[in-house]
Amino acid sequence: MKNEIDSYYAVIFTSVRTDIDDGYSEMSKQLQDLAKDQPGYLGFESASGELNISISYWRSLEDIANWKANVTHAYAQSRHADWYEKYRVRICKVEKDYGRE
Amino acid sequence: MKNEIDSYYAVIFTSVRTDIDDGYSEMSKQLQDLAKDQPGYLGFESASGELNISISYWRSLEDIANWKANVTHAYAQSRHADWYEKYRVRICKVEKDYGRE
Repeated sequence: MKNEIDSYYAVIFTSVRTDIDDGYSEMSKQLQDLAKDQPGYLGFESASGELNISISYWRSLEDIANWKANVTHAYAQSRHADWYEKYRVRICKVEKDYGRE
Repeated sequence: MKNEIDSYYAVIFTSVRTDIDDGYSEMSKQLQDLAKDQPGYLGFESASGELNISISYWRSLEDIANWKANVTHAYAQSRHADWYEKYRVRICKVEKDYGRE
């Protein structure tokens, strides 16, 4: 994460998976690799339990829209009904950021 | 989560734990219970792996500031050096929210 940037965006993706893999694991890995090459990509964090949380960080809303429209990503989105019992996407503006690294 | 609300805030807390418990587990549970009674509290989600991600949702920045100032919460914050190798707090405005429940 590039914390020197004044203002940036977070996409919080929370999900509960179905039992169906059918390409999920491979796609998940592929999307993480692809995202890194997208303009405006700043970072990615995830953790899994009963609920899965993935957060990607972006420079602007435009960068997020471009990533959503990426062909491979669009295909993955079309498979959500197979892979997720439920999911939610939250697009957020990070207004304050502090901590200890 | 009350999704009927137009605009709301998310506090993303990411952390890597130390090996020290020393009250951590108990405090973590207590804070989650306490947060529910705070004005403006909307929900809580978490998942744990190498990285822990906890996200709390709030009605306003004022509600977040009040929660930060809560006596028990302030005590927990004073213990961060013991409990966390590193951590980051991001206060975010949720600008868009969609999904399938």
